[in-house]
Amino acid sequence: MPDSRPLHILLAPAPRIVTDIFDEADLARLRALGSLAIHEDGPMTDDVFNAHAHADIIVGQFDMPAERLQRAKNLRAIINVEGNFLPNVDYPYCFGNGVRVLNVSPVFAEPVAELALGMAIDLARGVSRSDRRFRDGTEHYGLDANRDAFSLYRQDIGFVGMGDLGRAILPLLAPFGVRVRAYDPWLPSMWIESLGCEAASLETVLRMSKLVFVVASVTDDNQGLLDATAFAMMPKGAALVLVSRAGVVDFDAMLDFAAQGHIRVATDVFPSEPVPRSHRMRDIDRILLSPHQAGALAPALREIGKRTVADAELIARGLPPVMCKIAQPETVARFRSTPVAKS
Amino acid sequence: MPDSRPLHILLAPAPRIVTDIFDEADLARLRALGSLAIHEDGPMTDDVFNAHAHADIIVGQFDMPAERLQRAKNLRAIINVEGNFLPNVDYPYCFGNGVRVLNVSPVFAEPVAELALGMAIDLARGVSRSDRRFRDGTEHYGLDANRDAFSLYRQDIGFVGMGDLGRAILPLLAPFGVRVRAYDPWLPSMWIESLGCEAASLETVLRMSKLVFVVASVTDDNQGLLDATAFAMMPKGAALVLVSRAGVVDFDAMLDFAAQGHIRVATDVFPSEPVPRSHRMRDIDRILLSPHQAGALAPALREIGKRTVADAELIARGLPPVMCKIAQPETVARFRSTPVAKS
Amino acid sequence: MPDSRPLHILLAPAPRIVTDIFDEADLARLRALGSLAIHEDGPMTDDVFNAHAHADIIVGQFDMPAERLQRAKNLRAIINVEGNFLPNVDYPYCFGNGVRVLNVSPVFAEPVAELALGMAIDLARGVSRSDRRFRDGTEHYGLDANRDAFSLYRQDIGFVGMGDLGRAILPLLAPFGVRVRAYDPWLPSMWIESLGCEAASLETVLRMSKLVFVVASVTDDNQGLLDATAFAMMPKGAALVLVSRAGVVDFDAMLDFAAQGHIRVATDVFPSEPVPRSHRMRDIDRILLSPHQAGALAPALREIGKRTVADAELIARGLPPVMCKIAQPETVARFRSTPVAKS
Amino acid sequence: MPDSRPLHILLAPAPRIVTDIFDEADLARLRALGSLAIHEDGPMTDDVFNAHAHADIIVGQFDMPAERLQRAKNLRAIINVEGNFLPNVDYPYCFGNGVRVLNVSPVFAEPVAELALGMAIDLARGVSRSDRRFRDGTEHYGLDANRDAFSLYRQDIGFVGMGDLGRAILPLLAPFGVRVRAYDPWLPSMWIESLGCEAASLETVLRMSKLVFVVASVTDDNQGLLDATAFAMMPKGAALVLVSRAGVVDFDAMLDFAAQGHIRVATDVFPSEPVPRSHRMRDIDRILLSPHQAGALAPALREIGKRTVADAELIARGLPPVMCKIAQPETVARFRSTPVAKS
Repeated sequence: MPDSRPLHILLAPAPRIVTDIFDEADLARLRALGSLAIHEDGPMTDDVFNAHAHADIIVGQFDMPAERLQRAKNLRAIINVEGNFLPNVDYPYCFGNGVRVLNVSPVFAEPVAELALGMAIDLARGVSRSDRRFRDGTEHYGLDANRDAFSLYRQDIGFVGMGDLGRAILPLLAPFGVRVRAYDPWLPSMWIESLGCEAASLETVLRMSKLVFVVASVTDDNQGLLDATAFAMMPKGAALVLVSRAGVVDFDAMLDFAAQGHIRVATDVFPSEPVPRSHRMRDIDRILLSPHQAGALAPALREIGKRTVADAELIARGLPPVMCKIAQPETVARFRSTPVAKS
Repeated sequence: MPDSRPLHILLAPAPRIVTDIFDEADLARLRALGSLAIHEDGPMTDDVFNAHAHADIIVGQFDMPAERLQRAKNLRAIINVEGNFLPNVDYPYCFGNGVRVLNVSPVFAEPVAELALGMAIDLARGVSRSDRRFRDGTEHYGLDANRDAFSLYRQDIGFVGMGDLGRAILPLLAPFGVRVRAYDPWLPSMWIESLGCEAASLETVLRMSKLVFVVASVTDDNQGLLDATAFAMMPKGAALVLVSRAGVVDFDAMLDFAAQGHIRVATDVFPSEPVPRSHRMRDIDRILLSPHQAGALAPALREIGKRTVADAELIARGLPPVMCKIAQPETVARFRSTPVAKS
Repeated sequence: MPDSRPLHILLAPAPRIVTDIFDEADLARLRALGSLAIHEDGPMTDDVFNAHAHADIIVGQFDMPAERLQRAKNLRAIINVEGNFLPNVDYPYCFGNGVRVLNVSPVFAEPVAELALGMAIDLARGVSRSDRRFRDGTEHYGLDANRDAFSLYRQDIGFVGMGDLGRAILPLLAPFGVRVRAYDPWLPSMWIESLGCEAASLETVLRMSKLVFVVASVTDDNQGLLDATAFAMMPKGAALVLVSRAGVVDFDAMLDFAAQGHIRVATDVFPSEPVPRSHRMRDIDRILLSPHQAGALAPALREIGKRTVADAELIARGLPPVMCKIAQPETVARFRSTPVAKS
Repeated sequence: MPDSRPLHILLAPAPRIVTDIFDEADLARLRALGSLAIHEDGPMTDDVFNAHAHADIIVGQFDMPAERLQRAKNLRAIINVEGNFLPNVDYPYCFGNGVRVLNVSPVFAEPVAELALGMAIDLARGVSRSDRRFRDGTEHYGLDANRDAFSLYRQDIGFVGMGDLGRAILPLLAPFGVRVRAYDPWLPSMWIESLGCEAASLETVLRMSKLVFVVASVTDDNQGLLDATAFAMMPKGAALVLVSRAGVVDFDAMLDFAAQGHIRVATDVFPSEPVPRSHRMRDIDRILLSPHQAGALAPALREIGKRTVADAELIARGLPPVMCKIAQPETVARFRSTPVAKS
């Protein structure tokens, strides 16, 4: 195996904190690759950057315009310790010069999938709503509590988007024997079918599903994709679980349909956070509100460091990274996520 | 195949209502076996019983003491359309005279398992609690919302009891890659291990699990099995999901440990229902209250009829029933469930 | 838990040998239940039997007519260390007197399922046939070797019978994404569908399947069930895997259809064993011959003892056995298997 | 979605034949992307190439040196309709200029995995060997046939390599409850563990496994990796299934160890094909010979066209391909497979 030259690694993960995402053993593995510089005090000025311009690997999310990249002659990889590809990197330069750009979105797939399933069962079976009534002293028992409940077993389930997050939810649904229809314009039918799902139009997904998971990233093309017209297509009593990005839906329209009781909604994301104290969504009966807590679980943060280190070790050995998400030239510029601090 | 003599079937499912559990097609299949008598107006008096004492199959839950059974010379099966074996049947007579006694508990396994998983994720991830805070305007976001959250992935899970209900929960947990320890004194270690679980003592289950499912039936031997001593064995912050029968736990002790924040509790069953309006449990932060709604789902009720008919057809052909639960001579007298109306 | 009276156990497993099926630890567990008498020298004479007529549990397969059973006043269970229920036990007496009759057929399900899958892939992909040609120097390579090969992935698979053995094969097929149609006249459609299969007539199974597993026990009703008419229904090039009992098929007709190349056949069972040296089946190209080796694997034999002990321990505690197969009054008299020595 | 300019596609799949891999519907989909030129008569001369140098997508495996690539100004993707990346493409040019290079190896994963499992069961249970003895009239029955048989259930299984092929085998083994140790120097332990396997050294894999699947590609680093020293580490009676490339093993040493009965071997690949008529391997009892038939199944060939079309449609829309294997700059130059005609 070639390439045992010691590497220089620049670790500047702000606004993340090094010790949140790396334990001592992980840092030791990074150091073992050559030299490790940690920068945590203050912004990444040009002076600081220039002092580490010989870095082989940069771990962080600071600005990387062409002028910096051109100075980073040894650079092989930029590992962003977030779940998104931010617009502050000159991607074309990277693709043209053999610099891998990675993010750590895989660490969030499991915790988000778990919460999405919990939210789905909550909406279907009325878990939090029954508990709320119990606390109010207005609960009903047995069959009377279940008048509009439904089960996930053998249910018609829809997906808007079938990327990494959708694929993390699928195995959790498998034991329920569900039928899944998925809409994802970036993926061929053949690919969706290889997952045991049916490829379908957005309209078919909405019309035929009792429960829809919205797991699409926001792009130029799909902002506000789920609007009043879309919600109206959903059968009365159907449920919507939103765990990717608020920008994919017309949030006000979604709240209207929930307030009218046409659909049930669970959402972990919001157009802006914190949600205003007096916002009407806080009083809607048919909504389950989750304060952006789907992915931000301690084990996920610790996994950021572990994936970063594992891929850095591969890169040091001249091998392709496999633990982080790799930016693709065709799509990286299309994402429109805005960063959320410490999500 | 022998035995095509037409059968007489007596259907008297009170307090269940025939049309709740049988659709027309199911009733037509019953009628096709010979003659069907439906008794829904009033109690099963001796006069009514005597008029149908020649029945081959009885579907219902009325009293069947020896004196009635002795008159039922043709009787091959009693199918109780509940999830329990009630103490109003002379079981030894049945076992000694080739009368199968069945119940329909399998219809409840899936809906209860589903809710149990939903409750488990709720306790682990704080779903309903975060929603409650959102409605109060006191929510935290992201990491701050997750300070005491944990994930089910690769978690240590415990089971108290590993009967039909436990076995319905296991496949739902499988995609989380959990490690399961199970305590069930009625089952050999070999049997529990064949399910991919570890057989363990009650103490080991309690001490080693972050989340415990209590799914044991109540018997003479296990009333109040989980008491203050048991709850104290659970690690701080662990979660308990109770979906079988309240009698298995010392309910007050359980509430104490939840109120102190030592454990988190979700329960679908209660010592008596309805719970008194002013009961302290309604105000405990670390409890999730579910008003006996785990099994009483409409599709489960309709499945009662379908399982009854399928087994009646087998019995008519001289074959063993396979869709309902079969009373076992060794255990039927040990159960101590009290019937709950329309559960 | 009641019933700690010491038990007397009579172990007389001829023609099986005690040390083939019990290791020392298993025997020690049996002894710990009370007293254990092992009889291995010679037949079970009445004198020997009478000396142990007070046994609580009998492990063996010797004759148990009513006159012996009536003397065995303490008897709770007979555990036959074979995979079949033999006709030398007075079953009605047992059912009427609370004596459990068990066999150890579950130990054979896994090894037989494994071999059945191996045979299925062999027939589909031409494994042994290609190897045979290689040894003859007549092999073809690549595509030319695969002219009539087919894959199990997403294939139409049929089952004749869906008992314990069929259910052991199903999980092995699951990752191939197959569609399974199953014919079993003893089981309701609902039951078969709960396994993820389609309930179908025998004709549909035969006409629609590229590969058929014959896993039915022989009964009064199904001897020679698969005859020339049945084989003619199978599509040309389809495959048949026979692993239960030769009596279910018209063996000569099966060989005819294999010899003509209409179907491919793999069989582990034969009308009589050993097969005559000059039998024509030895020269048919489209047959895979397996000398009754599907179940007789050393780990299966050792599991006999373990299941026996586990159930004896349950019986000692007044609990129902769960590790062995329990004779059912409706069906036990219908089986027509003849014992095969040391199978 | 951008980029609806019509594309020009050059399809020249020799030595594959267009109609073997594309059906009419697939060709129609290619044509619908713009213009399609099919070249099947004769080699790809510079004249022919120049006439299509404006192609956006090239489907084929002809030489693509820098001088041709430089003329192909519109080129976005080269799709090789083989399972390997051949050394006749200037990969650095492609990576530096945004040209995707793909191959269709995913179509072979399922058929090879299926045959690998069939071979594994054959070695473990003696399927073809027993059949061979049956044909010779020397068969033994039952236990006597199984003296050295073993089962895959709960077995220790090893993998040398855990790429796409290994990952296709894993789900087929999952229902057997196996313990898998895998050696793959290109993959982090974390990655292997995420598959439910244990990452291990080659020596550990060899010493601890009863059955080893060799599924590594040949690279500069691993030619002859499994040599006499390696085979000697395997426990007596262990089995080796070789389905990737013969170059990974010292073939003569492997035959020696099989001939001595130390290990059992199944191989689908050979140092050269056809194998000489008089080669000693044809007479070794403990070997299963498969004439390079693992992947070359008709459905796999048809899938080549389908994956090619699906990715071409994505590329036409400016999206990343997902159905074919994408060449990675770090590894593409390391593979050392020599093409095998029409495999």
